[in-house]
Amino acid sequence: MFEKTPLFSALISHRSRKPISMHVPGHKNGLLLHEAGISYYKKISELDVTELTNLDDLHDAEGCIKEAQDLTAQFYGAEETHFLIGGSTAGNLAMILSAFDPGDAVMVQRNCHKSVLNGLELAGLVPIFLGPEIHQEGGFPLGLTLETVKMASEQYPEVKGLIVTTPNYYGMSADLSSIIQYMHERSLPVLADEAHGAHYVLEGFPDSVLSMGADAAVQSAHKTLPAMTMGAYLHIGKQSLLNKNRIRHALQMIQSSSPSYPIMASLDLSRSYLAQLKSSDIELIKEQSLELKDFIKQCGFHVLDAPSGYEADSLKITLQAQWEYTGYEMQSIFEQNGLYPELADSLNVLFVLPLGVSHETMRWKEAILRASKELNSKRKLAAIKFPSAFPPVSSLSYSYSEMRRKLTVKVKINDSAGRISAETVIPYPPGVPLIAKGEQITESMIKAFNVLQKTGARFQGGGGEMISVFAEEEGVEQQ
Amino acid sequence: MFEKTPLFSALISHRSRKPISMHVPGHKNGLLLHEAGISYYKKISELDVTELTNLDDLHDAEGCIKEAQDLTAQFYGAEETHFLIGGSTAGNLAMILSAFDPGDAVMVQRNCHKSVLNGLELAGLVPIFLGPEIHQEGGFPLGLTLETVKMASEQYPEVKGLIVTTPNYYGMSADLSSIIQYMHERSLPVLADEAHGAHYVLEGFPDSVLSMGADAAVQSAHKTLPAMTMGAYLHIGKQSLLNKNRIRHALQMIQSSSPSYPIMASLDLSRSYLAQLKSSDIELIKEQSLELKDFIKQCGFHVLDAPSGYEADSLKITLQAQWEYTGYEMQSIFEQNGLYPELADSLNVLFVLPLGVSHETMRWKEAILRASKELNSKRKLAAIKFPSAFPPVSSLSYSYSEMRRKLTVKVKINDSAGRISAETVIPYPPGVPLIAKGEQITESMIKAFNVLQKTGARFQGGGGEMISVFAEEEGVEQQ
Repeated sequence: MFEKTPLFSALISHRSRKPISMHVPGHKNGLLLHEAGISYYKKISELDVTELTNLDDLHDAEGCIKEAQDLTAQFYGAEETHFLIGGSTAGNLAMILSAFDPGDAVMVQRNCHKSVLNGLELAGLVPIFLGPEIHQEGGFPLGLTLETVKMASEQYPEVKGLIVTTPNYYGMSADLSSIIQYMHERSLPVLADEAHGAHYVLEGFPDSVLSMGADAAVQSAHKTLPAMTMGAYLHIGKQSLLNKNRIRHALQMIQSSSPSYPIMASLDLSRSYLAQLKSSDIELIKEQSLELKDFIKQCGFHVLDAPSGYEADSLKITLQAQWEYTGYEMQSIFEQNGLYPELADSLNVLFVLPLGVSHETMRWKEAILRASKELNSKRKLAAIKFPSAFPPVSSLSYSYSEMRRKLTVKVKINDSAGRISAETVIPYPPGVPLIAKGEQITESMIKAFNVLQKTGARFQGGGGEMISVFAEEEGVEQQ
Repeated sequence: MFEKTPLFSALISHRSRKPISMHVPGHKNGLLLHEAGISYYKKISELDVTELTNLDDLHDAEGCIKEAQDLTAQFYGAEETHFLIGGSTAGNLAMILSAFDPGDAVMVQRNCHKSVLNGLELAGLVPIFLGPEIHQEGGFPLGLTLETVKMASEQYPEVKGLIVTTPNYYGMSADLSSIIQYMHERSLPVLADEAHGAHYVLEGFPDSVLSMGADAAVQSAHKTLPAMTMGAYLHIGKQSLLNKNRIRHALQMIQSSSPSYPIMASLDLSRSYLAQLKSSDIELIKEQSLELKDFIKQCGFHVLDAPSGYEADSLKITLQAQWEYTGYEMQSIFEQNGLYPELADSLNVLFVLPLGVSHETMRWKEAILRASKELNSKRKLAAIKFPSAFPPVSSLSYSYSEMRRKLTVKVKINDSAGRISAETVIPYPPGVPLIAKGEQITESMIKAFNVLQKTGARFQGGGGEMISVFAEEEGVEQQ
């Protein structure tokens, strides 16, 4: 049953009528394309249609889109699933906008994706940030402990819920059942950004947060399933504390009123793809990962494990060059050898493997071997350990509405300790803000910033020598 | 110069390296796809990558994406252009969020797309609605008059700006220079939802609102150019009153942090496509439209013209069956004959023609002729003229934050006159809300609703027998 593809099939069936398009989009089923793009865009354009008869309407689904979403909900054990065409970003924004009211205090795992912070700002909430555990060797954030959640709940008894991010970017996750139970005993919802766990519904991978009782979970289908970029799922848990009408309202506010059918159909195909995977297939996928890890180790790299209390995703491999290179340098050498990693940070490089057995594994190994030889023969720069910058419990110095009314000044980032940041500094990937707008800048944030910049991080927002902070009195500059 | 395609070319160049993907998306350059989808998704997946080296980053563009955006800005005569991958929806939300502060009163053309209303709600603004002129024969809204803008400005001197929608869905637009000049004399910005006018930059089509001095304009490239669905442009006008940093901030809040490269590259290709069109090509496109209009008339349909003071888009044809059928009935018969119109309403059917000379015109004519014969031979139902429901100047009964705190009840829509609506009723397409959340429901709105429902309109939100209204005292029901 879960192998059915009602939405994709409806598109194929529409296509088979050889329809004349007197509607948008302007490429007219692929008949009108830039000559240079024809070979890439022709076939997909045949699926790139609009809300025609029998093709349903994402924002008021009652036909083939509803059927595809319902199958997905059942497959994932959700009460209700929404197809997202604006990525996990859209799901995080909608989840947050619909779960809370302006002025509500909400506990937020600090190593969240920037879209979570943007949701807090859009919804006018008061974030109470919870610092995660840190991976000792990797220097990157992991998950929350129950103790931190309890500490923050006692310090801020007015909180209305908790937003977690699990697994982390490196595919490491813990069992959150006790945290979710603690929150549910207080009738408070737990929202999960599970962007990297769309495949966790499969046996043989870590458990999904939905199975632990989360009230809602957002998953980037495009990250690990064969979906197109921006395709994602928003699952509403069974017995969710959230209001489903408010979620629908928020989704239609945030997402395009002309949703992409190729992306939606790829979400339909992705669930079908998962349903077709047999347990023997999953064993082969995991063997492929283990074998590659062994090979990487043989090439002289160090491969990181999940620490005690955490489970690792077989599709993710985090490696270090035995502390001799920064992650960015390694990434560059891998790329010169034709292999493009998912992410580098000061210490690590992250590979994301396919959810299927690849015919390319020999090419992978050749590229990794070439890169390792090059790394061994080249100048070595000591990697710098990324300092942990997040305190266990913290909040913003001003509310978002206060921030809108305050003047800002630019100061040198190295002189900014103690000031309140007026901008968000986001190393990307992973897109986890290092300094959030409204946070007091600490020495350890500045140190971390300098490490990132010196080692070659890219930034989305921030990244220069200067940083915008809120004015005290010494000078004014309209933002 | 404008024919260059820096972003698309960077993707092709990346592709030519036969890169190994150890990154997202999960389809790995198209190697891992659902078998049923391979023929449609394989080629496009080769372009569906992520923010890799040399492929720039939409949210902090400084390479090939910046170059493609800069070329587009120059081509359109804009100060700055942003590629949108969340459709005009994303552009409207970002434009509104960045131009105004919570509590600001803003004049809004009432026949706006729902995304404009959603922007008002997200930004916590106080809309002052301005009623448009109405097309006499077609019964649909056109544009604003300077008199209405002056009347509202005098009645609400606190307004901070104006949001217009031009052209209307049916491709009719007026010269807004005097309205924009009136606003600029007061140092107030004019934001334009120009979703249907991405091709107005070309000679031979009506003038773009950007050339009339608008501070910002949002265009759905996917509607009339050969772009993929959800591809759109946000142009900032020269000497714009808007703050460019705030626009960038709003865009990165609203749009996916994993923007689709196939959609972005299709925006790059679309500008190149426009630049390649010679004036002789445009003449042929216009002749194709005129010839089709003549043929449609010969088949017994009535084709609507733009009224005095308005210009018509050659790519749009609005037709009526000489008052004998509703638009929905006509649409259905066209579809049975293999031709899919863009939109039907109670009276009209709208065709959108390609921005290029088609090799399919014979098929078009055959389908139109077959449909006309069928219409002549079938039962005829008197079409009902869609009543105009929008007063010249009006506002909401409650602020958006008051609405969030109020209880709601469901009442029969036919008994709801005088009540304050707690939901937005949106016939879709065109997506122009008939009743907006917070508006007092009038008899003419109820009449219009019944006409739409009786004649077969589809709704996104609303559409049943009951409507949610804010509670007075007779009963309560949590929304």
